[in-house]
Amino acid sequence: MVAVASADGDLLAENLSLIARDVDSLLDSLMPVPDDKHARLIEAMRYAAIGGGKRLRPLLLVATAEMYGVHREAAMRAACAIESIHVYSLIHDDLPSMDDDDLRHGRPTVHKAYDEATAVLAGDSLHAMAFHILSDPQTSGDPFVRAELVHTLAGASGAHGMAGGQMIDMIAESEEFDLRTVTRLQQLKTGALLAASVEMGAILGRVPPEGRAHLRAYARDIGLAFQIADDLLDHEGDEAKAGKALRKDAGQGKQTFVSLLGIERAREQAKILVEQAVGHLASHGAEADLLRAVARYIVERDH
Amino acid sequence: MVAVASADGDLLAENLSLIARDVDSLLDSLMPVPDDKHARLIEAMRYAAIGGGKRLRPLLLVATAEMYGVHREAAMRAACAIESIHVYSLIHDDLPSMDDDDLRHGRPTVHKAYDEATAVLAGDSLHAMAFHILSDPQTSGDPFVRAELVHTLAGASGAHGMAGGQMIDMIAESEEFDLRTVTRLQQLKTGALLAASVEMGAILGRVPPEGRAHLRAYARDIGLAFQIADDLLDHEGDEAKAGKALRKDAGQGKQTFVSLLGIERAREQAKILVEQAVGHLASHGAEADLLRAVARYIVERDH
Repeated sequence: MVAVASADGDLLAENLSLIARDVDSLLDSLMPVPDDKHARLIEAMRYAAIGGGKRLRPLLLVATAEMYGVHREAAMRAACAIESIHVYSLIHDDLPSMDDDDLRHGRPTVHKAYDEATAVLAGDSLHAMAFHILSDPQTSGDPFVRAELVHTLAGASGAHGMAGGQMIDMIAESEEFDLRTVTRLQQLKTGALLAASVEMGAILGRVPPEGRAHLRAYARDIGLAFQIADDLLDHEGDEAKAGKALRKDAGQGKQTFVSLLGIERAREQAKILVEQAVGHLASHGAEADLLRAVARYIVERDH
Repeated sequence: MVAVASADGDLLAENLSLIARDVDSLLDSLMPVPDDKHARLIEAMRYAAIGGGKRLRPLLLVATAEMYGVHREAAMRAACAIESIHVYSLIHDDLPSMDDDDLRHGRPTVHKAYDEATAVLAGDSLHAMAFHILSDPQTSGDPFVRAELVHTLAGASGAHGMAGGQMIDMIAESEEFDLRTVTRLQQLKTGALLAASVEMGAILGRVPPEGRAHLRAYARDIGLAFQIADDLLDHEGDEAKAGKALRKDAGQGKQTFVSLLGIERAREQAKILVEQAVGHLASHGAEADLLRAVARYIVERDH
């Protein structure tokens, strides 16, 4: 699959559309609507999880696993687990008591399309589903791999990962943050899950922890580059393309990479981080081309 | 530990106070407050999780594990994981968009003591923490046991367990439920996690799935008995002892076991279920005395 593409762009476009199709198809089969009173809950989970998003985390996971010889079908369940965590976090972040957003991927957010209680529960259920998927023998025949996948994802999603980052982000509305604190916030809020995507791919590929240092460095750099690019898109992007409200941070007085660095320096910094990320893959040959392409896409995307 | 108690009541009282002490102590060490901006999140998690509750689920887990020769210290991490899930569900259930409760264990609920965003995130973080604990090699040296613990708990907490039950409970305010639907609701909302407590104890005790049928039957019966007792306490209990608002179901027009069966028949039914539960333990000797005592306590408690 990697060999046929002639250029970065083709390789990436092909893989983005492939992963979107496969994630949708597997999530569809993982969430059949039951003939029971709680059907509404599964419908809300499906509404949020199927048919939207760039599927960047599944792509990172599958691309890393493939680098180590894991067939993409064998990595898809873990990829859907990490996407479930991402989707759950979006549902909860969009809640009125959190970021209070009405629009996500160009459609009403879950609490708008359903109601707030259903949104809380749909997020909770996707959260649990991720660990149910990972701990299932179908995800890996090796229980050590299953347990390590769970441990990595639970660490990235909890108080010292994504949820901790969102907590700091809530505080950001009332406090003046410096560059160091914004970096820390984003490493937790966005970086932890992006890093987990790569780490979980390596776990499936049986890469021992000591062999993952360069992948962690790659993930850390693209994580920060991703957030700087997000801040730039929030500042100068197109709401129709983004499918969500933009320029909210400035209105709330939140410090971002753009407000702290300015547009030019932020853009420059993102580019440096991407080149740095690609540099961490120097020990790999063509098998890492997709990860290289993802790194470049992260700052070049328009939504 | 089991042999010294002279009667059901002593055995239970001793174990309830022991488990409360040990759960508090381990949760305390599992949640150190970091010197970081997200300290508030961990403080909220600690506020909700430490120093309250009967610790019935940890007790069930530890009592079952001990029946199969697992030392209680070795079962305490899994016990804290299931309690974390229980506490997370209480935090989210208490939210204004859900049951809108101001009081829990006699203290302000998390969204009252902190704020709603912090309550959502503290619940989410305890949810993730449970799986982080279970998948850690410190919980069991056997990765198969770790993965099976995760799988069981994730199944019990998700859309087809506790969260699904809460979804049906939200619908109950606007629909007229019959006994069958109320039973189904409670099997999901309360029963799934109580059953997981027993199941996880058996997993730690290396009981193969086919050897757990009688434990599942025990758990199913005490789960229903527990909920009937809860409905009775909601109807005629003491708010000060309960530490939470009572008699809300009737005000919201929700059907309960008491509204559907009447007080006398509900009380009778709970007693029958407890005797049935104890009957499922007939193949065990004195090593099951604590599980027998828990079954009786479930309907005799006053809060």
